[in-house]
Order: sequence, then structure tokens, then C-alpha cells
Amino acid sequence: MVVRVGINGFGTIGKRIAAAVSKQPDMTLIGVTKATPDYKAWFAKKYNYPLFTAVPEKMEDFKKAGIEVEGTVEDLISQADVMVDCSPDKVGAKNKETFYLPKNKKAIFEGGEKAPVADVSFVSLCNYDEGVGKNYIRCVSCNTTGLVRSLYAVDKAFGIERVIATMVRRSADPPEIKKGPINAIVVDPPTLPSHHGPDVKTVMSHIDITTFAVKVPTTISHLHCVAADLKNEATTGEVIDVFAKSPRIILVSAEKGIRSTAEVIEFARDLGRPRNDLYELAIWLESVKVENKTLYFFQAVHQEAIVVPNNIDAIRAITNTTAKEESIFLTNKTLEILESGIYPS
Amino acid sequence: MVVRVGINGFGTIGKRIAAAVSKQPDMTLIGVTKATPDYKAWFAKKYNYPLFTAVPEKMEDFKKAGIEVEGTVEDLISQADVMVDCSPDKVGAKNKETFYLPKNKKAIFEGGEKAPVADVSFVSLCNYDEGVGKNYIRCVSCNTTGLVRSLYAVDKAFGIERVIATMVRRSADPPEIKKGPINAIVVDPPTLPSHHGPDVKTVMSHIDITTFAVKVPTTISHLHCVAADLKNEATTGEVIDVFAKSPRIILVSAEKGIRSTAEVIEFARDLGRPRNDLYELAIWLESVKVENKTLYFFQAVHQEAIVVPNNIDAIRAITNTTAKEESIFLTNKTLEILESGIYPS
Repeated sequence: MVVRVGINGFGTIGKRIAAAVSKQPDMTLIGVTKATPDYKAWFAKKYNYPLFTAVPEKMEDFKKAGIEVEGTVEDLISQADVMVDCSPDKVGAKNKETFYLPKNKKAIFEGGEKAPVADVSFVSLCNYDEGVGKNYIRCVSCNTTGLVRSLYAVDKAFGIERVIATMVRRSADPPEIKKGPINAIVVDPPTLPSHHGPDVKTVMSHIDITTFAVKVPTTISHLHCVAADLKNEATTGEVIDVFAKSPRIILVSAEKGIRSTAEVIEFARDLGRPRNDLYELAIWLESVKVENKTLYFFQAVHQEAIVVPNNIDAIRAITNTTAKEESIFLTNKTLEILESGIYPS
Repeated sequence: MVVRVGINGFGTIGKRIAAAVSKQPDMTLIGVTKATPDYKAWFAKKYNYPLFTAVPEKMEDFKKAGIEVEGTVEDLISQADVMVDCSPDKVGAKNKETFYLPKNKKAIFEGGEKAPVADVSFVSLCNYDEGVGKNYIRCVSCNTTGLVRSLYAVDKAFGIERVIATMVRRSADPPEIKKGPINAIVVDPPTLPSHHGPDVKTVMSHIDITTFAVKVPTTISHLHCVAADLKNEATTGEVIDVFAKSPRIILVSAEKGIRSTAEVIEFARDLGRPRNDLYELAIWLESVKVENKTLYFFQAVHQEAIVVPNNIDAIRAITNTTAKEESIFLTNKTLEILESGIYPS
């Protein structure tokens, strides 16, 4: 079966999932929606993605702008096996009420929606099977995806008692010109703990995790500082071995020149990745350290890209078309995700 | 007795300590040194600080630049009761060998020097008496000063089992134009733990503390994310009460608009502080939270200013002229350090 995928919203995440869906042998991208006829609509046409209006009443605006559309979001939904909702935060929940529920349509939401929007909060490496055949899946946010990837690997190998993590977050994505800060570190939220810990627990409910979050003036990646008390003894070398064998994780070497998020992203650019997307979680090799049964490490999360492979897997899980291992294999292969290991090796 | 203070180095810290010494009724600033005759030398003259050359051979350079000097650093040392060494990192240790030891002169070093340079690593609120009458004192770095201030208060009140803290560090001071990063978060150092934890232990040897450090593109303040496991039960309210009564700590309110380091420094500007210096450690009121005997909070450290009152106290301790409480009172009064409490109140 070839799954007919519609994408509602063509922003930072939507355009990336559209490109990724186009690369899947078992999926057809039947269309994307845009709310306004701006330059991104031009790109949808350029890439031959059938274009629909996200807001039914806006057909006229597109006509005036000289951009032909195939119809409205409702037309797209009626043709789709599954919708991936990449609307701005909280709009997905409204779309569920307005469109997906009435039309009895399976839908995948992103991390900007609250957990109750869906039947399951999903990270394919961790709980693919919980998503199989569901009506609504929520792919968790970039920060949560990053945390779950590494913590799941560590928890499986050694058990985790407790995690304390600080998210040093990029303030805005590269094209966002209205967001700050300019010269500041923002406590965001100022209250502790931040919501990131509880969000991890929507996927790994048994993990005791507390998180801090601050926003800093950079655009190209989040950085996490993670301290995890382990249940079982482990050496630094054993943890490195686990990370070096975990899917969608790469170890990057500061000694070889990757000492910052800028250099992590330069690595993705030099790989020739479209839009310099790094789907992999990057963990600093030299940062991994176990002391008195506590594990410490730094990891970088490319906020625009890390959720993409998870969404592709979610499409297969929700439509119950493919088993976990096969989906992950296929997604990794089509997106050219790196073999796990140390880079540069 | 009026203590004759010489300051070796007139950079970020030196110029601030010079201004602070000038305000003390029991001290005389007998001079400052400069290595090069740049615009900062002009300011030394403007403020009527007797100027000496930091490098004896450079008298000629100053003459050529039309800047009159009183002599060399050796002349300054011979007139001083105590020298405060504000040279660049590691130069203080060299100065000790070259000048202070041979001349048998008491000296205070800054946090850029390693602990063994001095007889004691010093934070006046915590271990003033250990500095009394010593020959060499090291005033710890801004990050360590900030950590010790809050942790000492918490430890005294409730006991501390263990601390995990992340230092989100400004990359450069405001006038430093050659330092980065531009658009990045740098793991600095990439290895864990960072040196900040051990540096805290030079003052509070019994504290089990592990630290992460990253550098971000901002100039005006460090920000710390602190998690402290407590020995004894405490409520969030009890901890807030302790901070609200701790000297040189202020609680700032995110709800009232202070949500970032930029707004913390704007607060200092609006106070009319010289060079917008915030001598106080700023802890976010709303961030303070105790959960399962672990305390969480955010604090901001103005890297250029927080060490200044500690240096003034160190001058009194090393010369054994004043008792702890009196020194702290006098320093706070002359520098107009805020009463502890919540701001805005």
C-alpha cells in the first residue's frame, strides 16, 4: 500500500516533512497547505507539491496573488489517508476539532500541541508499537525528541534513577527576524522546573527528570547539559559504546574541531544535507563522563530537523503499514541518516 | 590605620577596584599600573589615579604617548601596604615571583590565577577569617563568587548533599571585540565536569558539586542553573526567606518584568550604578523551588562587578585591620550595595 499523505502547514517543519515524504517509496505526498500566498507558496509550486489553502475562505487571496491552488484543506483531507499537522503551536488542536474529528481522519501532530491532543506521544525508537493503528499521534518537540533519544539508550543499557538537565535553547530559527533576545540570556520559563521534563515523561513515564530552560541569542541549535544518575554501574567507555551503537545518534569530537553548535551545523552543511538539516542527535564524545554512578554529557539538537525522521515513522505506525525495525531502516536509508559512531572517525 | 593600596593592572577588574578603593574611608589608592599607554591610561589620569607602568621597560612608550607616569610597578610596590593584582590570567603568578615575593609584599590575586598562587581562596561572606593576616589571598572568579554566595547561604540553613549546576556564560565583556561566538553555543570546556565545581571547593571544601559550562553570544552577564540536594527538609518559602536575608544577594521578579540578564543589567543602569555594575548576586524569585528535598533556582552573575566587594574585604583581611562584620558593613555602605530582599519590592 502506498500511503497518501497530506501536510497541513508548510513552515519550518511542514516543508521538511514534505521533502522527506517525497523520498519514501511507500508514500505519496498528495499536497500541502498554506495560510497565506507568500514566498513559501512559490516554493511549494516549484517543488511540484499540490497546494491547498489552509483556511478555506482564503482561496481568493491566492487567486489575487496569482498562485493557483488545488482546493482547500478540506479537499486535501478528503483525499488523504493521514494528515500531518504542522500548523503553528495550538492550531493543531483546533484543526482536530474543526477538520480531523468530523471527517474521521487519522492525524499526526507536532510537539507544539499538548499531549492530550493525541492517543500517544511518540518517539519511534522508543515506543513505535504504541503508535500502531492509532487515530492520533503526537510527535514530541525537538528538545523532547533529543532527550528521549539519548535517555532511552542509557536507560535500556544501565537504568536511570534520576535526570537533571539544562536546555540552552536557540531563541529563533534562522529566518525569524522578529524574535530575540539580542544580547541576553532569558530564563524561559522563569519558573522551575521547565515543561521539558514532564514532556519526556509523556513518552518515558518512569523517568524521574527535572529540567531548566534558558534562551540565548543563537539560531542554529539547542544544546543540552545532561546529568543522569544510573541504576547500575557503568564506565565512561561503556556509555560511549552504547551511544556509538544507538540509531540516530552520532558522537562528535571536540578534539577534532567540533566545539560548538555552529560547527555541528557546519558538519551538516559539509555533508551536503538539504537545508543543512541534521536529523541525528549529536553527543560530544569528550563530554561523556561517568563519576560515582552519575553520567554527564552535552548534546546538540538541530531544532528544525531532528523531528523529521520521527514523523516519517509515525506515518507508517499510524497507518499500520510497516513494522518498527523496517520503518526505521527505511527512513534512515531514504534520509541518508549517518551510521551511528564517532565523527569524524 | 589607612591602608595604602596599589593596583597592578587597570582593565575590567582593576579599574573597578580602583574606583571602589577610592570610596573607602580606611584606604588610599596610591596608584594603578598600565602596560600600554592606551585610552585607559587617559582615564587613570582623568580620575587622578597615580599612574605607573606595569612593565618597567615601557616608561619610554608612555613618554612618547605624552602620558606622564609616576614610575614603574616596582616604585608602586615599594610604597604599598598591599597590592591587588588585576593582571590578565596567569600573569599574576608571574608577578608574584618577579615582584611580590622578592619584595616581601602582601598581594591579592584574582580568579584567573590558580588556587596555589595564594594562601587562601577567599569569599569574604564565607571565609573572611581565613584571610586575616595572610600574605597572599586569591579572590575567586565571578562564577565561583556567585556560586559560593548562594550555596553558602543554603548550606548554612539546610545543609547541602550535592550540587549540579550549569554555567551559561557570556562569551566576552562588552568592550571585547575579538571574542566570539557569533551564532553558536560553545561547549567550553567540552570535557565534563568543568573546572567551576572544583573552584567552589577551594572555598567550600565539603561541598559535592559538579558543573557544566557553555559559552553563548552575549556580553552582559553569566546565568547559572542550580540544582542542590538538601540535607534537611526545606520548603520553597523557607529558602526564599534565607535568600531574602543573605547579604549581597537580591531576589528579582520575573513577574515584574525581569526575565533576562539584559533586564537585570538594565536594573543596575536604572539604579544609577557606575558602569552599570551589579555587585549583588541576582536570584530569580519565581525560579526558587524545592521538590523532594532538591532545591532549584536560576541566578545571574555580573561578571565585571560581582568580585569587587570581595576584593575590598580582602584588603582589610590581609592587612588585619578590620573584623569581618565591620568590613562587610563598610564595603556594602560605601558601594551602596542594596539591602537584601525582593526587587522590585
